[in-house]
Amino acid sequence: MAYPFSEALAGLTGTATRDIFRLLSRPEIISFAGGLPANDCLPVAAVAEITAELLADGAEARRILQYGTTEGYPGLRELLAPLLADAGITGLGPDNLLIVSGGGQGLDLMCKAFLNAHDAVLVEDPAFLGFLDTARAYNGRNIGVRAEADGIDLDDLEAKIKRYAPKLLYCVPTFSNPSGKTWPAEKRKAVARLAAEYGVMVIEDDPYARLRFAGTPVPSIKSFDEAGRVVYISSFSKTVSPGLRVGFAAGDAEVIRKLAIGKQGADLHTPNLSMAIVKRYLEKQYFYPNIEKSLPVYRERKNAMVDALDRYWPEEFRRTDPDGGLFIWGEFPPHVDTAALFPEAIARNAAYIIGSVFFAEGADGQKRGSNTLRLNYSNETPERIERGIKVLGELFREKLASSP
Amino acid sequence: MAYPFSEALAGLTGTATRDIFRLLSRPEIISFAGGLPANDCLPVAAVAEITAELLADGAEARRILQYGTTEGYPGLRELLAPLLADAGITGLGPDNLLIVSGGGQGLDLMCKAFLNAHDAVLVEDPAFLGFLDTARAYNGRNIGVRAEADGIDLDDLEAKIKRYAPKLLYCVPTFSNPSGKTWPAEKRKAVARLAAEYGVMVIEDDPYARLRFAGTPVPSIKSFDEAGRVVYISSFSKTVSPGLRVGFAAGDAEVIRKLAIGKQGADLHTPNLSMAIVKRYLEKQYFYPNIEKSLPVYRERKNAMVDALDRYWPEEFRRTDPDGGLFIWGEFPPHVDTAALFPEAIARNAAYIIGSVFFAEGADGQKRGSNTLRLNYSNETPERIERGIKVLGELFREKLASSP
Repeated sequence: MAYPFSEALAGLTGTATRDIFRLLSRPEIISFAGGLPANDCLPVAAVAEITAELLADGAEARRILQYGTTEGYPGLRELLAPLLADAGITGLGPDNLLIVSGGGQGLDLMCKAFLNAHDAVLVEDPAFLGFLDTARAYNGRNIGVRAEADGIDLDDLEAKIKRYAPKLLYCVPTFSNPSGKTWPAEKRKAVARLAAEYGVMVIEDDPYARLRFAGTPVPSIKSFDEAGRVVYISSFSKTVSPGLRVGFAAGDAEVIRKLAIGKQGADLHTPNLSMAIVKRYLEKQYFYPNIEKSLPVYRERKNAMVDALDRYWPEEFRRTDPDGGLFIWGEFPPHVDTAALFPEAIARNAAYIIGSVFFAEGADGQKRGSNTLRLNYSNETPERIERGIKVLGELFREKLASSP
Repeated sequence: MAYPFSEALAGLTGTATRDIFRLLSRPEIISFAGGLPANDCLPVAAVAEITAELLADGAEARRILQYGTTEGYPGLRELLAPLLADAGITGLGPDNLLIVSGGGQGLDLMCKAFLNAHDAVLVEDPAFLGFLDTARAYNGRNIGVRAEADGIDLDDLEAKIKRYAPKLLYCVPTFSNPSGKTWPAEKRKAVARLAAEYGVMVIEDDPYARLRFAGTPVPSIKSFDEAGRVVYISSFSKTVSPGLRVGFAAGDAEVIRKLAIGKQGADLHTPNLSMAIVKRYLEKQYFYPNIEKSLPVYRERKNAMVDALDRYWPEEFRRTDPDGGLFIWGEFPPHVDTAALFPEAIARNAAYIIGSVFFAEGADGQKRGSNTLRLNYSNETPERIERGIKVLGELFREKLASSP
């Protein structure tokens, strides 16, 4: 049937991703393709305890089961100050905060609030695929900005701001998905300054910063934002539970109000039970201790992957070495096509995500990143990581040995 | 600060609604303004029991706390067949179904999937305010279609389809919000036929049909849809709990796939705990018995309101008398301005919703419905309903006595 789909969604078929995830559901496959927090770190007992308490209290239970308010469960926004302080953000009140249904909804609402069809959106190359698709769903035009080893290239950023007059800049400056890179403070300060100077709205997506197992925290871009141009978005998906779908957006009150209007039409409010669980979880001071308990697990898995990459992969392979988050990014010489090798990797029961999907189409329309890939280390054991990386290393070595 | 908001959201301020709800938070006010299901009918004990069971099972708890799939919690869609059968819909499989975060998300995703800026959207006059705003948030152009006592006027519908070539028709054919009207089967069949003939997509919003306390169920528009033009959207908000935010959309597999792509960018998936609770609630056969227990409460409240309206309100007042749902719709002679009287109603501690907000701007740009209002009877006791309707009746009688 020929349905009259919107221009924005007509081109989004989702077929490639769906096909990949169908392949990955085979249990014998060791998958580095996902982006799931470690199953072993999910706070099952704490959530069970909290939920029992919440639903045993008749008045609270009825408040949870009845309609709630778009801005968030009563009292939850007031508890976010310590998390904001982690990111160097102070002085925000409830009017500067909106609870969202996972950080992804924050990205969606920013696009809804700011994008007209064909508006330019700048992203750091490579960028989170989910955001690229969200911007496409609003008919936005994604344009990649070059990146250096320590994050976005400020000269290219300013040049592209001048050339494309973008509405939005999207970035994940700490433990980026997909690159694992973290920007230094100076770069963040400069981006806040450029945003103020040119009137560009910055979406600072920060789901991973609190999963830091080495190195020193860096203040957020938002902490340098004096012009109200930065909206800081984070979530409890990597630190408590992704299944609850609770995140938050922090920004200027006028912007937050507009996001709330967008949210009202989208899902009215985030489910109360999810929000009430997070609220009680914060009140009971379970948040930081559970992260502390999780970090050794992430550190061990990241180290296992780095060790195995160094042992088994060709020396031409270049990779990042993150101090936190979930991802390692890698690059081969240009003639290695990670998409072409993917079926063979699956045949050998190991999987990665091809890197090209994380690149914006580019002003030139050329596909980039065909020699890159993203590896996730958070949801496999060190033993399986070693085994899977070894299998993939054999494949890439064979490929490099047989090619010029 | 002058923010470069999108054309679609720039005009949506939400101020009026917010101001009204701020007024209504005063506890001394008897409010007929909301749209909440009865607090007393929320299944608190059942949800507490189910949640304890779900979270006590380690594997299920981890599945709930981890990321889930966009289409819905495993096994939930398969349990919807009886609810669809209620609406006369048979023969649909999981590929025809998408779990959404409340019925409202279904409306949002339909707009996202089909609307380009300035596309025409037909709605039955008066229409659910939430949908009007959702279509506006995609820069859609709402156009009202005349209604008769038994629902949409088919001649005006066909004329406006020909004139405006709309992408979408939105309607609530059973116990409409705001009108409380229910369309007969013949009208539904005719709308399905017109949709097929002209290639218009129909959003059939059906949150209230299962709250029927009198009369006989009528098959849905979707049950007459042989062309795949109707998407049927319903939710558990009025039958289980609105706070859980779980609904579903049923339609042609190609359309459902597109909605799922839109949802992936919006909130990735509905929170697993909400979906798992609804799944277990259906499995345990709690769904229909809890509705049966609730219906007398709704019947009693509706009757209390109708009795009080007949006793206390001016005889010039015309109203609907629904067999279910949450709302009564009323109309005064043209010179009575319900918006102008609203502050005085609040001063007397009783509230309604002014009717004009439920009308599309209209092709002529004129505001309509200034003499109308919506009354909600579901969340006040019969005693308070009698008291509040009496207070409002005195106000309207005074107004009519003093005017020509």
